[in-house]
Parts: sequence; C-alpha cells; structure tokens
Amino acid sequence: MSSPNTSAATTSDQRADTLAVAHVAFGHFTHGLSTGAWEPFLAMLTDDFAFFFPVGEYKGAHCGRDKARAFFAYVRAAFPGGLTVMLDRVMSNATTVVFEFRDEGELRGAPYRNRVAVSFDVRDGCIAGYREYFGSDGTSY
Amino acid sequence: MSSPNTSAATTSDQRADTLAVAHVAFGHFTHGLSTGAWEPFLAMLTDDFAFFFPVGEYKGAHCGRDKARAFFAYVRAAFPGGLTVMLDRVMSNATTVVFEFRDEGELRGAPYRNRVAVSFDVRDGCIAGYREYFGSDGTSY
Repeated sequence: MSSPNTSAATTSDQRADTLAVAHVAFGHFTHGLSTGAWEPFLAMLTDDFAFFFPVGEYKGAHCGRDKARAFFAYVRAAFPGGLTVMLDRVMSNATTVVFEFRDEGELRGAPYRNRVAVSFDVRDGCIAGYREYFGSDGTSY
Repeated sequence: MSSPNTSAATTSDQRADTLAVAHVAFGHFTHGLSTGAWEPFLAMLTDDFAFFFPVGEYKGAHCGRDKARAFFAYVRAAFPGGLTVMLDRVMSNATTVVFEFRDEGELRGAPYRNRVAVSFDVRDGCIAGYREYFGSDGTSY
C-alpha cells in the first residue's frame, strides 16, 4: 500500500523528519550545557550556521561553526559546573522546532535559574540556525 | 465519506484547531501592542489565565484577567506610540503555539527594537497561558 502524496501528508512527513533531527540536536545541546562536550552538537551544524544570543559578549547575530565553538567555550567558562535542563514543551512547523525549558546551575559561582526558548532551523538533516530567547533574568524561573 | 478516527488524525485536527485559536489571539495581541486596545485579547483569556514576563516590574508569574489588564496598561504606558510587530515564524503542537517576531517602537521616547518569542497555551477556544521570551535587550534585533 502506498500513501497518497498529498501536500498535507508531505507537510506532516517533513514536520516529523524536522522534529526527529531537532530532538537529536537538542539532546546534544543539553549534553553540551551539562558537560561542556559540544562537538556532537557542533557536528550537526551547517557550514552557514547562524545563531542569535540575547545578552552579553555574544549578544546579536553570529555565523559559522568556529564562532559557535568559541561561543560554547564561553558558555562553559561562565558555567564550569554545567547547566541542568528541564524541558517543558516542544513546538514545530515543517522547518523549525522550538524547545521551551528551564535551566539551573551556577554562573561564575552564583546561583542561576532561567526560563529559555530555543528555536532550531533544520535543513537536510542539519541545524542551519539557532535563536535563543530568555524568559527571565537568570535569577528565577 | 468519513475520516478514520486515528490518533494521528485527532492530533492533526487538534493542532489545526489550536493554531486557528492562537492566530486569532495573536492578531488581537499585535493589535493591542499597536493601538493599546487590549479588550479583544483580554476577552479570549480563561479565568485562570497565567502569564510570565521576563523583566521589570512584571518579571515572573502572574495570574488572572485583571492582572493581565493591568500589565497591558503598563505596556501601553511604556510604549504610548505602540509597537509594530514583524512576524517571522509560527510553531505549534496540539495545545501550544509559539510566535517568533521582531518588534519596534519607542520606549518612553527612546528607540526600541527587540526579538521576541511568545508561547500561547490554548484550551477550549481560549488562551489559558502565555509566556514571553526576549531574544535581545531592547536595543536591536
């Protein structure tokens, strides 16, 4: 039996593929936040990967895997003990997946808690873009 | 002809209903940001409506339509000329819809630009919860 190749089915299949890739990437992302081991996440990025971060030294837009590697080293230096992620919900369309979560750790020795939304753009099994949004100021969630 | 009542179809139908309600609410939300007319948005909230805001006087969790009305009056006082919204993308699951957008206006007379993600929880045709996340610090997008 073959499935009808309707646009609805195609969209649904594409959404499922996009979700599957994003879930793998988010697993690597949370592993990086927890342990500082970022290479599995970096390996999933496209060559033209672009990311946005809300605050601090990396506020704004950046491009490329090398810039991402430097950014995640900066994150690790800020949170040497790692961040623990509690995932609340996942939303998607055919090309983008948003993860809403809370995280917790120590920012240079001080208690840190935040609410976060990260938005991953998926293309050809890779992560082509990533935008981070903060729902608090690092003192509560 | 009847559609098969598979769980996949039910989920797909529920997602479509949720998206439709959230799009109406987001239209009212952007109208409120632009004009200060918040009653159409407030009329869509459940009695136990809960919202989170990232910064300032309303940082954290709040509950109820009256608190929401006070919050949006506070937003209007901060942006008396309104905010213009540029919607970038929409992601969803069966119960929640996230809108990623940029906005622009004047915050008490000073130029204001931000990247924003808002997450709406839909229940029985109403908005039961709303979480706002900032992707910048109000100076750029």
